[in-house]
Amino acid sequence: MSTTLKFTVLLLALGFCRGLLDNYIDEEETEAPDAQASKFGSLWPLPQKVQISEVSFKLTSSSFKIVDAKESSAGPSCSLLQDAYRRYYEYMFGSTKKLGLSKSRRTGPSELTELQVWITSPDSECDDYPSVTSDESYELSVDLPFAVLKAPKVWGALHGLETFSQLLYEDEYGAKSVNATTISDFPRFAHRGILLDSSRHFLPIKVILANLETMAMNKFNVFHWHIVDDQSFPYLSRTFPQLSQQGAYHPYTHVYTPADVKMVIEFARLRGIRVIPEFDTPGHTQSWGKGQKDLLTPCYSGSKPSGTFGPINPILNTTYDFMNQFFKEISTVFPDAYVHLGGDEVDFTCWRSNPDIQLQQTGIILHPKVCFSFIVKLLDIVTTTNKGYMIWQEVFDNGVKLKPDTVVHVWIGGGSNEEMEKVTAAGYTTILSAPWYLDLISYAQDWQKYYKVEPLNFNGTEEQKKLVIGGEACLWGEYVDATNLTPRLWPRASAVAERLWSAKDVTDINDAFNRLSMHRCRMVERGIPAEPLFSSYCPREYKGI
Amino acid sequence: MSTTLKFTVLLLALGFCRGLLDNYIDEEETEAPDAQASKFGSLWPLPQKVQISEVSFKLTSSSFKIVDAKESSAGPSCSLLQDAYRRYYEYMFGSTKKLGLSKSRRTGPSELTELQVWITSPDSECDDYPSVTSDESYELSVDLPFAVLKAPKVWGALHGLETFSQLLYEDEYGAKSVNATTISDFPRFAHRGILLDSSRHFLPIKVILANLETMAMNKFNVFHWHIVDDQSFPYLSRTFPQLSQQGAYHPYTHVYTPADVKMVIEFARLRGIRVIPEFDTPGHTQSWGKGQKDLLTPCYSGSKPSGTFGPINPILNTTYDFMNQFFKEISTVFPDAYVHLGGDEVDFTCWRSNPDIQLQQTGIILHPKVCFSFIVKLLDIVTTTNKGYMIWQEVFDNGVKLKPDTVVHVWIGGGSNEEMEKVTAAGYTTILSAPWYLDLISYAQDWQKYYKVEPLNFNGTEEQKKLVIGGEACLWGEYVDATNLTPRLWPRASAVAERLWSAKDVTDINDAFNRLSMHRCRMVERGIPAEPLFSSYCPREYKGI
Repeated sequence: MSTTLKFTVLLLALGFCRGLLDNYIDEEETEAPDAQASKFGSLWPLPQKVQISEVSFKLTSSSFKIVDAKESSAGPSCSLLQDAYRRYYEYMFGSTKKLGLSKSRRTGPSELTELQVWITSPDSECDDYPSVTSDESYELSVDLPFAVLKAPKVWGALHGLETFSQLLYEDEYGAKSVNATTISDFPRFAHRGILLDSSRHFLPIKVILANLETMAMNKFNVFHWHIVDDQSFPYLSRTFPQLSQQGAYHPYTHVYTPADVKMVIEFARLRGIRVIPEFDTPGHTQSWGKGQKDLLTPCYSGSKPSGTFGPINPILNTTYDFMNQFFKEISTVFPDAYVHLGGDEVDFTCWRSNPDIQLQQTGIILHPKVCFSFIVKLLDIVTTTNKGYMIWQEVFDNGVKLKPDTVVHVWIGGGSNEEMEKVTAAGYTTILSAPWYLDLISYAQDWQKYYKVEPLNFNGTEEQKKLVIGGEACLWGEYVDATNLTPRLWPRASAVAERLWSAKDVTDINDAFNRLSMHRCRMVERGIPAEPLFSSYCPREYKGI
Repeated sequence: MSTTLKFTVLLLALGFCRGLLDNYIDEEETEAPDAQASKFGSLWPLPQKVQISEVSFKLTSSSFKIVDAKESSAGPSCSLLQDAYRRYYEYMFGSTKKLGLSKSRRTGPSELTELQVWITSPDSECDDYPSVTSDESYELSVDLPFAVLKAPKVWGALHGLETFSQLLYEDEYGAKSVNATTISDFPRFAHRGILLDSSRHFLPIKVILANLETMAMNKFNVFHWHIVDDQSFPYLSRTFPQLSQQGAYHPYTHVYTPADVKMVIEFARLRGIRVIPEFDTPGHTQSWGKGQKDLLTPCYSGSKPSGTFGPINPILNTTYDFMNQFFKEISTVFPDAYVHLGGDEVDFTCWRSNPDIQLQQTGIILHPKVCFSFIVKLLDIVTTTNKGYMIWQEVFDNGVKLKPDTVVHVWIGGGSNEEMEKVTAAGYTTILSAPWYLDLISYAQDWQKYYKVEPLNFNGTEEQKKLVIGGEACLWGEYVDATNLTPRLWPRASAVAERLWSAKDVTDINDAFNRLSMHRCRMVERGIPAEPLFSSYCPREYKGI
């Protein structure tokens, strides 16, 4: 009855006393990688250099402390680190601290009592926002008399704290232990993102925060917030409040207020995560039209307006006035140096139907003349706000002139190798999402497919490869909301996390299975409903339903 | 960027200024059925006969009561009903009762203040367990001065309460209303089940109870508990405690104690749900072998035992002694008249390797001689416990003689028409699961596929069709645990619920989409993380993550 066997229908139909099934159970077994412990324990994503000795130390919740090193450039005033210390203490001892021993108890000779966190650069960047050029490296040494985490900036320290917490394990009596370890670590790619879509379904703030939390556990550093789209406009704009008043699913219960947005950004910053909002135009904008008169193109049926509307109207000056004001607001609300401008999947039917919009011929196809010019004007507008921009690949494909620092987002085609080649040959920075559309679910262990992707597997020079700054796992929202988002995203996105962080040669699928299984149970223990990889159990199962 | 469009990769690659995308957005739209209100509101599954008038009444949490009708054969001592009244009051007013009006407030002229529940048969069956022959019919009349729910037995009353709660809606001020309505209802099929698998992953009791709760909201009446399998043996047997002590994932945290099992059975009974446990043999029993010496067949490598074990050892008398005692316990622990004995997917490699097990030839294939005889003996043993049995189709396919009341469970082949024809032609009762393997997930709205199944769509006489007593949606556990089970099951299983309950001609997919969308939001409002059908929102989104 095991469903993996379902596909062998014809043979099975011959029945249970005919002995034809012999090989199918084996088949199922080989599908699951070996469930042996990895020599790297539960580390995920795997650090660049790891040395774990067999010497182990105990840790107790009553004695163990995470403290600033004396030499650190970040002290008690760096609340980003102080918050992180508390958070990781809770992760490490949360489930056992009620049993905490008395504070006066003497520590044993092989007990580790301190992790010192040492920010080595004069500017810790404690109060800054992370950026694509942030230094995320760190070095971790676990030994007596104390463990030391050295990082030039707070961003590396955050990653190092996560790594340290991943080194802990429980002995058979539930006592926490850690082995003497030396780690030197940095990300392979600078841009490691998750796209969530709050338009197809509204995502309550609680869900977004829980996923930012989980992103930090996986060393992701970009939250690509696909905040609005055709279906709804939950972003409450101070300049144009009618956009959400009319365009959200509900003007009060299904919007993100300025305070909500601020909270998401700060929650993310405290975890070293950038928040890049996407305001996709000129297509994907049906919901914009509800609260902003004349913004969308009136579609025609023959010689008369049909009453429906198409993409943003590119021939009115008011459109550009609106865009100017709107993106001015966006540039102040979102601190990141980049904003994602979309530019994908424009439906021309309506533009073509409108007699005021002229057509022009390219090759054999007629298309609206205004197509390029809308995007060109929008890019100019956004440039005046001092933001860089990301765009979906179509904008590049169609030869729009882009600023040199533009990030081209490749999403079409599971392989996507040719597109990566073209974009980088043109000298543009790029990120990859094409093979990582996590909303496209299928039976069994699809994380392996995501894991096996090699982003630099395209023809190109070393210079071209350097232009690939990372990638994003995308969880589009058509079939996802608060009820199923988190288990659908994790640990499938964790596969992408390791691909973007760890060294290129970290490709052993069995080792990955073993570490990821433990990493998934750790996420579960931390309250995140990360779904199972295969038949198995966690020592502490998820407490929700 | 919408992922539905991902499949049109080649065309999209030609880019956004070429106008080739015109039709794809439309395609996406047609994929989603019309989002218009159904004339049947949010009723799910659709009752057999419904008449809803336009006259509406208000209900308030402070005035409305569910009471026993004076003539009812079930009174205050029927705690099944009293519990149900409280549960449905909470469902109906849970989210608004804090605003409850003062009790002394006069009710308005068009306010409905009472639902009278009238059990019409002298024996209400209040303290019984439901069975395959239980009368589940009811009649509901909503009108002034009070609504009346008539049912021969409590089982129909439970369904009627659910239906009544589904008739409520909120006006724009959040006030609860119900229209004057007449409903006459009964299930098309008597056996409407959900299979959950607590062996591949342990399912905490909380998860099982939440899903029983949701089953009742969908008028399912059988919980097929695939409680043990190769991977783990979480059933704590009083007679053979070593089975779970050694065979569970963990002997304390990952077992079902007798008290747990009792609680599940009673929780289910109170909702009109039968609990049918499956103890699958002779295959799928690896976990049994850990705590029961000599139960499994030693496999041989050449002339020596290899150290691994195969299916249950069919040639030892101790095996049958064990089975005797074990199923005696099962027959007392589980009150249902049926137990599921499995009998599927037996791997013969090991039996063949064992020199003590003789082979016999059928056609061109050698198979163990003991194969039939094990099953035959097991069926005899179970018969002595006065239980009926269900078995997977292979047992029937291979010509084992079965008791006339045996239920043959058809699971192989998505269509399964021929098997249904064969089983019923042989005069056996059958249930269908083949098209309803809900663990086989895929992108987009697969509920429609489940919904479109017609169980009687096979060649056969009227007599044969009557032998089809229902079906089960199966959620096998390889990729499912507490983290993702509930949203993966609902509302996909709801599609099966309507197919098994409603009249054969209830097949309008648009109407189903609209009712099911509302039904899913109702489940969410009741705290169940039922996933969305498509881009949309619920007035009250899920509060968890």
